[in-house]
Amino acid sequence: MNKVGVILSGCGVFDGSEIQEASATLIALAQRSVEYQCMAPDCELEVIDHLSQQPTGEKRNVLTESARIARGDILNLKDVKGDQFDAFLLPGGFGAAKNLCNFATKGADCTVNPEVERVLNEANQAGKPIGFICIAPAIGAKVFGDKCVKLTIGHDPETTEAINATGAVNVGANADEIVIDDSMNIVSTPAYMEATNPAQVFAGISELVENIVERING
Amino acid sequence: MNKVGVILSGCGVFDGSEIQEASATLIALAQRSVEYQCMAPDCELEVIDHLSQQPTGEKRNVLTESARIARGDILNLKDVKGDQFDAFLLPGGFGAAKNLCNFATKGADCTVNPEVERVLNEANQAGKPIGFICIAPAIGAKVFGDKCVKLTIGHDPETTEAINATGAVNVGANADEIVIDDSMNIVSTPAYMEATNPAQVFAGISELVENIVERING
Repeated sequence: MNKVGVILSGCGVFDGSEIQEASATLIALAQRSVEYQCMAPDCELEVIDHLSQQPTGEKRNVLTESARIARGDILNLKDVKGDQFDAFLLPGGFGAAKNLCNFATKGADCTVNPEVERVLNEANQAGKPIGFICIAPAIGAKVFGDKCVKLTIGHDPETTEAINATGAVNVGANADEIVIDDSMNIVSTPAYMEATNPAQVFAGISELVENIVERING
Repeated sequence: MNKVGVILSGCGVFDGSEIQEASATLIALAQRSVEYQCMAPDCELEVIDHLSQQPTGEKRNVLTESARIARGDILNLKDVKGDQFDAFLLPGGFGAAKNLCNFATKGADCTVNPEVERVLNEANQAGKPIGFICIAPAIGAKVFGDKCVKLTIGHDPETTEAINATGAVNVGANADEIVIDDSMNIVSTPAYMEATNPAQVFAGISELVENIVERING
């Protein structure tokens, strides 16, 4: 039985994992009889009130809030090794760009959470496929930019420029499309960077998951 | 264009809406080109740490936390009229049984949040179909028990007894099944009351949404 690690970054589009993308990822895996294990780093996030879309000044914990999506079944990322799962998937949401790295404020000069960077490098070196969703390809760009990884955050010009400044190459794509870097074993899809509804998100993520499962079995 | 109201109860299975069920509901609606509007009551919830699954003593707001699932696009339930949408759907999670009513502690003697009760009664009187998911049928049982409404929370004996004590009739069902009360225009599915993975949740909710859409158009 295959088992895929899903790296979360909190719970809510403006300060954590995009909930619909994360749920779509889990549904698409389960539809293909692939088991999953959610995981997240044990670090703080700055709370955004999702009603007013303003910061509240409050802090919450990324691991604890991510556990909401995972129904409590979640690992601390520091206890995960990159060769321990058959693949890794990273949903989007601002948490991917603010909690797993600081791309949201630093762009191409961002740093990546050390546990996230370690697990992704270990996975890549062990030949495990990695799927980046929505804005999460910014993490892949920073970690694998020196290998000119091809990935997509969709068409947004400013984000494309920041991605390309890491050494990575952004390939424009629509919500229902995936971008494959065969040599790096990395797949990505824009999800809510391009999508206007959750059906489009689900279509793109389903295609990404299908490709990742083929890579695991292929 | 049809538009369906989705009544949320927070964000996280142990103190709010079950996130995967809520997301599956939104995906299934969008896949059928049905627009939706999320809504929730403006009231407090008692926070459960989803990692330790213990209460933290903290309070959060049901409307503000529900906004995380809705990407910020959410209405205060007090501003909603029951004839304003073509149907209403209520995902599960403990929030449905603790925040929208107090079935979790009071069983058949529970009271329902007045705004929830008002909107459901208005919708029912206006002939709008209502879909209850997971433990949310407990709300339907309390509101429509005097009309002997048929619905399902799955097979759990203790919950069945409490549902039946309201005057409603629980009809046992599996995760991929729906229970229809034609005369009441009410449909239900057990979701995580029976499901063991999110693909089963998505299957049951998709079937429920399909039936609700047929009722809207039929």
